[in-house]
Amino acid sequence: MDELFITTVVASWKQVINRLDEGMAPLSDEQLQKQVAPNKNRLFYLLGHLTAVHDRMLPLLGVGERLHPELDEAFITNPDRAIADPLSAAELKKAWAEVNAAVTSAVEGFSSEDWLKKHTAVSEEDFSKNPTRNRLAVFLSRTNHASFHSGQVVLAK
Amino acid sequence: MDELFITTVVASWKQVINRLDEGMAPLSDEQLQKQVAPNKNRLFYLLGHLTAVHDRMLPLLGVGERLHPELDEAFITNPDRAIADPLSAAELKKAWAEVNAAVTSAVEGFSSEDWLKKHTAVSEEDFSKNPTRNRLAVFLSRTNHASFHSGQVVLAK
Repeated sequence: MDELFITTVVASWKQVINRLDEGMAPLSDEQLQKQVAPNKNRLFYLLGHLTAVHDRMLPLLGVGERLHPELDEAFITNPDRAIADPLSAAELKKAWAEVNAAVTSAVEGFSSEDWLKKHTAVSEEDFSKNPTRNRLAVFLSRTNHASFHSGQVVLAK
Repeated sequence: MDELFITTVVASWKQVINRLDEGMAPLSDEQLQKQVAPNKNRLFYLLGHLTAVHDRMLPLLGVGERLHPELDEAFITNPDRAIADPLSAAELKKAWAEVNAAVTSAVEGFSSEDWLKKHTAVSEEDFSKNPTRNRLAVFLSRTNHASFHSGQVVLAK
């Protein structure tokens, strides 16, 4: 039973990531500069933001060091267009694929016990009071976050 | 272990619904007429669409008859502004709350076995080949769908 539960949860993440991939990967550098609505984020920014947030999942889930901490300043700390893009569209697409592959591979190795361990941003004390602050909660939250921005990406079409 | 897994999944759904509620409930009838971007869906349409889709979960999860099948024509079959709105904003907000309460209450009564039963839109034969076509998959998919439109709703601000 546990295994099927987990397979279903990971399949949901993969589906969201694949849809974003299908929307973003075919776009040219110029198309990625498009805003999702007037004066809203560019697709490029959203792709950078999602890459940085997913990269942060690696230490948050306790499965490894970050691959691209250099993305935070441009895509998390600052809003869109506040500073120059720190990498090209081709480099960003590569980082996006790398980070998602690392997260997916790590969670596919989780046992059911691993899923219910605390994530690293909650203290032992807080976790003992609220055991839903676990890795599964982080994973579902990030899946929803990716869906949230996916809904914006489609508006740029 | 099973129980904590399920609690975490249902908490994720509630969080997404609550954020949509917080965004939509305070809006006036006039504000609900706003489009999320030029020539895109109105907030009113998105609220109707989400209400109809969540209402469809009741038979799909095998937990009951639909409460508001009359919403499908305006909010699923047709795109926004194709036909006149079939209900007022106040009626729509009420239906939205009713439907989500019914879904949440039903899934809170699911055992782990219930979650992994087939949903009603898949045949026994297909389900035996692919047991991830279960109620949990429907629930995660609809949670992601709500997040997807939630990302659009915030653009109207």
